[in-house]
Amino acid sequence: MTTTECVSADAFKQAMRRLAAGVTIVTTKHGEVRGGLTATAVCSLSITPPQLLVCINRSAAAHELIAEGENLCVNLLAHKHQELAGRFAGQAGVVGADRFLAGRWVTLKTGAPVLEDALASFDCIVTEKVVSSTHTIFIGRVVDVCSRTNGKPLLYAQGAYAIAKALAARRKRRAAAARRLKTAGKARKRA
Amino acid sequence: MTTTECVSADAFKQAMRRLAAGVTIVTTKHGEVRGGLTATAVCSLSITPPQLLVCINRSAAAHELIAEGENLCVNLLAHKHQELAGRFAGQAGVVGADRFLAGRWVTLKTGAPVLEDALASFDCIVTEKVVSSTHTIFIGRVVDVCSRTNGKPLLYAQGAYAIAKALAARRKRRAAAARRLKTAGKARKRA
Repeated sequence: MTTTECVSADAFKQAMRRLAAGVTIVTTKHGEVRGGLTATAVCSLSITPPQLLVCINRSAAAHELIAEGENLCVNLLAHKHQELAGRFAGQAGVVGADRFLAGRWVTLKTGAPVLEDALASFDCIVTEKVVSSTHTIFIGRVVDVCSRTNGKPLLYAQGAYAIAKALAARRKRRAAAARRLKTAGKARKRA
Repeated sequence: MTTTECVSADAFKQAMRRLAAGVTIVTTKHGEVRGGLTATAVCSLSITPPQLLVCINRSAAAHELIAEGENLCVNLLAHKHQELAGRFAGQAGVVGADRFLAGRWVTLKTGAPVLEDALASFDCIVTEKVVSSTHTIFIGRVVDVCSRTNGKPLLYAQGAYAIAKALAARRKRRAAAARRLKTAGKARKRA
């Protein structure tokens, strides 16, 4: 097997639809210019030091801003942010800084826009950039963080927005339903 | 601001709990030795070529195997794999190749174990390793892929296993409930 052998783009995309992920808006500020885009290719990298990574397509407008400004903020979206997620994914046809006309935006340490009611925001300085074919992996060291207790995470799974439903709670409900059925059964027998 | 300044590990971990993610088992085979671990820090990197990345703690037993064997398989888990996820996260106290005594395992091209009923499996050769503090980012080129249509993705959100619930479906149900209420209201008025 050679390193150039690989599966088709279609087979890869089809299988990747099964990878559920939290939806984020990654923002940046370079000089006076703000940029941002919706991203799901975000993950925690290390705790000591607190680092995360974000994969950004090199053709995205925000890519150059992040690469040059060397700061980024990862805003974890709640289910109520579905429309905002679409806006920052370009679905509303809005580009550049105009995307920030929706949502309430503040700043923390780096100056990158922080969505005021995000579930959590990670304000980062970019410490490393790894270019890999069409994308750059930006490694961000978290210099400030904000987290809120309310709201359910917005997910993207199987090509659609979704929310998480705890499995434990589901089990409890099923057990309760089974108990109700059993009780109903006994009542029928008595009748 | 210096690059050494950062938030506390606790604040970072607390905020990261809000990032919902799909649960995977990442496996590898080096010589005759198989290894694997549960991971959520997995994301799609590029389509051309099909690449993904996985962040693995350098202290994990599978880390050296992946680094030396230069292959890995990312298996996306379904909700029925909750116990298997715990097993590969070390919660059952099972280490090394014994972890594979549960689940049905096959292979594709690289020889890394492929979970037969995973939602999707990405068989990869490792093309790049980026060491960053306690972790290594492994970039894998997807040389084979398997995907199945059945099953809901297993998620990890807020420190617990969960499944995704489509938001569109939820809206439809709410709309249907609202229509029922309206109809009931009209019926009451007529009565």
